[in-house]
Amino acid sequence: MLADIKARTTPNKTKTRALRDLLESNRLEFIMEAHNGLSARIVEEAGFAGIWASGLALSAAFGVRDSNEASWTQVLETVEFMADATDVPILLDGDTGYGNFNNLRRLVNKLESRGVAGVCIEDKLFPKTNSFIDGERQPLADVDEFCGKIRAGKDAQADPDFCIVARVEALIAGWSVDEALERAKAYQQAGADAILIHDKAPRFDNIQKFADRWDGSCPLVIVPTKYYSTPTDVFRAAGISLVIWANHTVRASVTAMQNTVARIYQNETLTGVEDRIAPVSEIFRLQGDPELREAEKRYAGDAGAATRAIVLA
Amino acid sequence: MLADIKARTTPNKTKTRALRDLLESNRLEFIMEAHNGLSARIVEEAGFAGIWASGLALSAAFGVRDSNEASWTQVLETVEFMADATDVPILLDGDTGYGNFNNLRRLVNKLESRGVAGVCIEDKLFPKTNSFIDGERQPLADVDEFCGKIRAGKDAQADPDFCIVARVEALIAGWSVDEALERAKAYQQAGADAILIHDKAPRFDNIQKFADRWDGSCPLVIVPTKYYSTPTDVFRAAGISLVIWANHTVRASVTAMQNTVARIYQNETLTGVEDRIAPVSEIFRLQGDPELREAEKRYAGDAGAATRAIVLA
Amino acid sequence: MLADIKARTTPNKTKTRALRDLLESNRLEFIMEAHNGLSARIVEEAGFAGIWASGLALSAAFGVRDSNEASWTQVLETVEFMADATDVPILLDGDTGYGNFNNLRRLVNKLESRGVAGVCIEDKLFPKTNSFIDGERQPLADVDEFCGKIRAGKDAQADPDFCIVARVEALIAGWSVDEALERAKAYQQAGADAILIHDKAPRFDNIQKFADRWDGSCPLVIVPTKYYSTPTDVFRAAGISLVIWANHTVRASVTAMQNTVARIYQNETLTGVEDRIAPVSEIFRLQGDPELREAEKRYAGDAGAATRAIVLA
Amino acid sequence: MLADIKARTTPNKTKTRALRDLLESNRLEFIMEAHNGLSARIVEEAGFAGIWASGLALSAAFGVRDSNEASWTQVLETVEFMADATDVPILLDGDTGYGNFNNLRRLVNKLESRGVAGVCIEDKLFPKTNSFIDGERQPLADVDEFCGKIRAGKDAQADPDFCIVARVEALIAGWSVDEALERAKAYQQAGADAILIHDKAPRFDNIQKFADRWDGSCPLVIVPTKYYSTPTDVFRAAGISLVIWANHTVRASVTAMQNTVARIYQNETLTGVEDRIAPVSEIFRLQGDPELREAEKRYAGDAGAATRAIVLA
Repeated sequence: MLADIKARTTPNKTKTRALRDLLESNRLEFIMEAHNGLSARIVEEAGFAGIWASGLALSAAFGVRDSNEASWTQVLETVEFMADATDVPILLDGDTGYGNFNNLRRLVNKLESRGVAGVCIEDKLFPKTNSFIDGERQPLADVDEFCGKIRAGKDAQADPDFCIVARVEALIAGWSVDEALERAKAYQQAGADAILIHDKAPRFDNIQKFADRWDGSCPLVIVPTKYYSTPTDVFRAAGISLVIWANHTVRASVTAMQNTVARIYQNETLTGVEDRIAPVSEIFRLQGDPELREAEKRYAGDAGAATRAIVLA
Repeated sequence: MLADIKARTTPNKTKTRALRDLLESNRLEFIMEAHNGLSARIVEEAGFAGIWASGLALSAAFGVRDSNEASWTQVLETVEFMADATDVPILLDGDTGYGNFNNLRRLVNKLESRGVAGVCIEDKLFPKTNSFIDGERQPLADVDEFCGKIRAGKDAQADPDFCIVARVEALIAGWSVDEALERAKAYQQAGADAILIHDKAPRFDNIQKFADRWDGSCPLVIVPTKYYSTPTDVFRAAGISLVIWANHTVRASVTAMQNTVARIYQNETLTGVEDRIAPVSEIFRLQGDPELREAEKRYAGDAGAATRAIVLA
Repeated sequence: MLADIKARTTPNKTKTRALRDLLESNRLEFIMEAHNGLSARIVEEAGFAGIWASGLALSAAFGVRDSNEASWTQVLETVEFMADATDVPILLDGDTGYGNFNNLRRLVNKLESRGVAGVCIEDKLFPKTNSFIDGERQPLADVDEFCGKIRAGKDAQADPDFCIVARVEALIAGWSVDEALERAKAYQQAGADAILIHDKAPRFDNIQKFADRWDGSCPLVIVPTKYYSTPTDVFRAAGISLVIWANHTVRASVTAMQNTVARIYQNETLTGVEDRIAPVSEIFRLQGDPELREAEKRYAGDAGAATRAIVLA
Repeated sequence: MLADIKARTTPNKTKTRALRDLLESNRLEFIMEAHNGLSARIVEEAGFAGIWASGLALSAAFGVRDSNEASWTQVLETVEFMADATDVPILLDGDTGYGNFNNLRRLVNKLESRGVAGVCIEDKLFPKTNSFIDGERQPLADVDEFCGKIRAGKDAQADPDFCIVARVEALIAGWSVDEALERAKAYQQAGADAILIHDKAPRFDNIQKFADRWDGSCPLVIVPTKYYSTPTDVFRAAGISLVIWANHTVRASVTAMQNTVARIYQNETLTGVEDRIAPVSEIFRLQGDPELREAEKRYAGDAGAATRAIVLA
């Protein structure tokens, strides 16, 4: 909540430092998808030390496709609401950076000013298509062009702790582990703070091979949406640094909304619904309403809003 | 979904006409809260003939208070995403109109251009506070000023079917049914297409009294958030035209997100989660992805995105 | 001015029809650059029957490069202010359509809802670079891909009179008149309502050759920024339909602002300035202030703003 | 220009500190109106040490009235473009703070994140009307309410150098110098960093009286739009700290645009225009284009944009 940020326990480090620490810590860390201020706060309250602002979830919440239908400033505005509502770092799923190296520079500057701790960019072309849709038919970015983009982004950041994570789509696009490793290494050398190695196979095998051969020059990040049944200890053993649970918050909300809305539609009554959903008071709490009530006493006098008398000459 | 609106079965009437018909039909109708494009589509798919773009739910989704913290253009942008994602009419909870008569004129013009079918304005002051928070201490708008606002809004609309619903806050602010009736009549005479008579009591008694004495000169709308246990047939018998289920979609989503996120946090795995939430394919479907896949074939050639070769002079 | 659009003499045709008529009329027509609501109104008041929302001027006004640094929704918001402030049609310089065919579809839908009459798209790649900067080194779009984009845009428009102008960059990129003609014909067959044939040479020669060989299947549009000394009758004789004076409004404003600001800075006084610049009252007039004063009487009572008394329960 | 901020000579102090120094220096300082990124850069280049983001000029540029027709986030977005385009501090004319104390808190946080150095708020009611329009009929804010707003704004700022200037409208609204002094003192005690004492009389007399009796507890700021013929040394002698030339940039642009556009319209040619207006290359320079050309070499390889080859699996 914007105005009560100071009132809450603030960590003694910046959000950017907190994200960097998550990436560079010795243990496996986890961040969780959110797609607006409300879900971001819920993720934080659950205990997560970081938030994944998922491109899929953001676009789904808007009601558009994960194909850059929403503009990058519409995404920026939403991720700003998310950063305002929380104290833990946010890593934005920044697709391709929404254009070339210059668009990424601009994005990095804007994310920093909004309190977003890092951005993940993927080696595909603008406008993007979600990796799980015909992934194997999607062209990849030229390595040199993508490395230039990473260098530009790193040069543009003002805060040295701001993180740029390079997402390697080679496995999804049907290329070999060799190609993925070559790209990952190039991206790391261009300045990437971490490598997100992505796959859509139902098994961890290819990423396991990738991790086995990775030289450890920067942390590895994974998104186990498709290989969700792989035990987490396998990720630990493979030396993964950060796991992103990438879309389960919005997916949980969809099921609940579909069920509740259907029930109300069919029964034409709230009977049987009220006790199954969060009370209105919980919504108020999540919005940070108590802080505003306190502030009204402090700044608007005992009579609160009612004091708005006016004087006329 | 913006681009496939034509592909879906389109009603033979405008959204504004559809909202007007809901208000003026002889039977009790229902509309349901949504707060973004995704929830709007879910509400439509459940069968609801209209959507309530709730100020509380919109602000909660943003992660801010229901006190005009988000700007009116931020609300406008979200409700545009909602209108793009659906074919049923949307009634926007427009708070006080975000200022005076002139701000409302501007809002009405903008809502029309975004395909929003109507707006509900309440007789309070900008910036508003949610009616369920210290409602009795909140000042009401001057009747003449509010009537001028209604007249200005009605004069501003280009489409004669666009609806302006006037929300009477007198009961919530601790005034009598007499005061509520007097205000409602004034608002109707100023041009309001319907009266939303609101209350925060756990019982329907005061609204019942109001409805008994209402002259029927325009439809009545209610929001049974607090008196949710009142049987729906009581509303029918009272001659109510439209019931708004005002915040249950977002409340359902909160509970589900809290539960799922907590479970994933505690277990550090997706095991046991995947089957309880919507699959990724369902998200794609809700986003209208199939239409885009078809369009790619139509407009981007057989090779789809892969054809993006370039020529150089 | 949004609110007084009705008060002014409204043409008996839509803005889209008015733009189409400009393109299809038998005589040479002219439209003039504007970059915000203020300059748009000035262009209209001068007598111009249409407005060119120039990408260069828009980006310059923002203070960014003509390289898609501003997002497409930021452009959209500005062009909406322009459309609200005027009654003549606006043709947006839409760069490449800000992405692929799908982005253009979305843009067309949004432009229609904002009252913009047409869009011009150029056969380059996103993100664009201004054609006058290293034009010969800029790659062109693939013809089939660009034709698919045109078809998608045309299929997306709801109003049959909305115009899509296809801008041929072949001459600027160093290709032959043959290549330009081939592209132009392909774009026209894909559905383009007009062809903008662009050149950066200081002479009209190449466009003359192009026009001589054009089959007349759709109107030709030119932008004589570089060959400005060519007499206008030459354009007429060449059968050009529409001339765009593409950036002279913003350029005039720059010189005036630089001179006036320098004078005030050096002299530390307004003496000698007041009489050379528009009075404040002229700014008020351009903003449409008189309409608001009238509206206050109509909607806010004799006492105007001063009546905002409040009542408390 | 966002991306080359580092390349230019950066002052060794923050923008907020620079604005505070302007207010607190021992000599009379001057800041100049700008209304978008382009005019902001022109003001900076002329030598001005600060920029006034005028509410009148911003709304005029949008093409709307100075009556809060543009939303506060639309204003915020424009002032962000201005801050990105310049290195000198910007003082935003924040009207009434766009609502109550809570809206101001939010505004202050957002301005800080956008690199705006301070905000000036006036003791009127939302939505505002320009002070030069029926100023004497406009109601003033309640003193306690306005002081609460100032305190809230000061408590909300993260950077101790961010400035809140309190604008006293008492003289414009027809009140006495006594009332103006009483209000000014109350606002200063509530935390205002400076007092803007405004008047619409053609003579400096009342402000002179005000300044004579001011206790010097904080700097005084004036806006000599109406009493422009008063010699600047009179302001110095009166102990004024900062003069705002509040709307002359936009007014200069209007005259120039009207003249140039009329000439082109009437003559149907650019002959005689080209030499009187800034060349296209000057527009490119103001946009910061050279930096982008350099960056392309650095990040996009020798072949620049042309290297965008793609690889397919």
